[in-house]
Amino acid sequence: MQTLSENACFGGVQGVYKHASKATGADMTFGLFLPAEAKDGPVPVLWYLSGLTCTHENAMVKAGAQGWAAEQGIALVFPDTSPRGEGVADDAAYDLGQGAGFYVNATQAPWAPHFRMWDYVAEDLPGLLFNEFALDQERQAITGHSMGGHGALTLAMGLPGRFRSVSAFAPICNPTGADWGRKQLGAYLGDDESTWARHDASLMMRAVGLDIPLLCDTGTKDQFLDNLRPETLAHAVMARRAQAVLRLQPGYDHSYFFVSTFMEDHVSFHAEALYA
Amino acid sequence: MQTLSENACFGGVQGVYKHASKATGADMTFGLFLPAEAKDGPVPVLWYLSGLTCTHENAMVKAGAQGWAAEQGIALVFPDTSPRGEGVADDAAYDLGQGAGFYVNATQAPWAPHFRMWDYVAEDLPGLLFNEFALDQERQAITGHSMGGHGALTLAMGLPGRFRSVSAFAPICNPTGADWGRKQLGAYLGDDESTWARHDASLMMRAVGLDIPLLCDTGTKDQFLDNLRPETLAHAVMARRAQAVLRLQPGYDHSYFFVSTFMEDHVSFHAEALYA
Repeated sequence: MQTLSENACFGGVQGVYKHASKATGADMTFGLFLPAEAKDGPVPVLWYLSGLTCTHENAMVKAGAQGWAAEQGIALVFPDTSPRGEGVADDAAYDLGQGAGFYVNATQAPWAPHFRMWDYVAEDLPGLLFNEFALDQERQAITGHSMGGHGALTLAMGLPGRFRSVSAFAPICNPTGADWGRKQLGAYLGDDESTWARHDASLMMRAVGLDIPLLCDTGTKDQFLDNLRPETLAHAVMARRAQAVLRLQPGYDHSYFFVSTFMEDHVSFHAEALYA
Repeated sequence: MQTLSENACFGGVQGVYKHASKATGADMTFGLFLPAEAKDGPVPVLWYLSGLTCTHENAMVKAGAQGWAAEQGIALVFPDTSPRGEGVADDAAYDLGQGAGFYVNATQAPWAPHFRMWDYVAEDLPGLLFNEFALDQERQAITGHSMGGHGALTLAMGLPGRFRSVSAFAPICNPTGADWGRKQLGAYLGDDESTWARHDASLMMRAVGLDIPLLCDTGTKDQFLDNLRPETLAHAVMARRAQAVLRLQPGYDHSYFFVSTFMEDHVSFHAEALYA
């Protein structure tokens, strides 16, 4: 692992690191915020998964999460959204290939073998983090924005017992039924739609449910509502009687101005679960 | 004036606007955050001047100021750092020309007539803002980062009575004695150093003083301390017995991770003066 930068930030350290990932077979970069409390021992950790076109950097500089995490003594992990670099496949469209990993393990050419973002976030990066940093593996929570909200929800439901709470900002809720989803799941996983279901938060909610608290915010002026389909997740949550707070925020759009506005709520929500 | 974007943000609106500036003879872009209270009447305003290489956008997305401004009912203005576009002179170096206006009115070729950032921030943009938006001209405060901290300090001392409080993050304190200053003041204002003095915060502090509260934060690990020279401003402030809080923050560098860490303090400091 290589340290790319470390900056003092809200009493802690915002670092950026690079490592060779077995899961993706590529060098991966991630951001990690460690609060001051990490000097004294392992701290709880909140994963933040980013959306289309993002790297590890966008949320790290724009989401305003570190101040709230510092207040709560929680670490933040900002993974990249796909493998990158020479020899890694890409597509001219912004919503496929590099910057658009969709948190799945691709089985189809040209995306396999590098595009294995599920394994990267679920196994590979945790293996590194809990070895190298003062992070408490028993106290993890997960959140994300847009495609990253999809990732947070599907990882939380696909890995029961792993996280204590899950939240999402404007998540893609039903990718098997939207342009943000059908194109990518088809490309990465192939035509057999039965393999898509575990990567659809609404279908997963119906199939396996969720036994940890969920908080979800979406703006009423989100320009991508047709792709997000919050109504499908709401329907599944209600049908399943899952423990959830689903909020539509008046006037907000899909931007980081929306994310940063509600970041304090999300960090507080996770802190309650992480310190329960 | 043209609206480039408006996003809901912490209950208010983060807008980006473009207008033809008489001062610079160029189209200028600026950011404006209006808190919810602006719907009911004029609100106080805090100017944020940015540093080298920045546009209106950097602080708007990275400084984390809107949340605190919303809490205090204060508007934020984010001007650009120079004129831009076709016909506007530039230099290959990052610290001269576009992105490096230094908040002066250039008198030398090729920078005159477009590089008139003092007049732009002091006269031109205020004329527009107080006409077009619900902002209270009698309640203004000013802050900035690095070159923008230099701008905030020199504008506050050069326009007595205009602002109720001034603060700065890692400001260039003594540009007539540093590489960040001598090069630019020479290029924009010419060889006669007597014309430079009103653009040097430490010299201005000695010459005219400051009759409003000052808050200044600089990191002890700032990689540009030799260019900032906080000691010269500290010496002048103490000699002048000015009302000031000068802080050196252990471990912090020059980045926006530093700025965002102390933004709450700065907005609270200005709120106290704006609501006095």
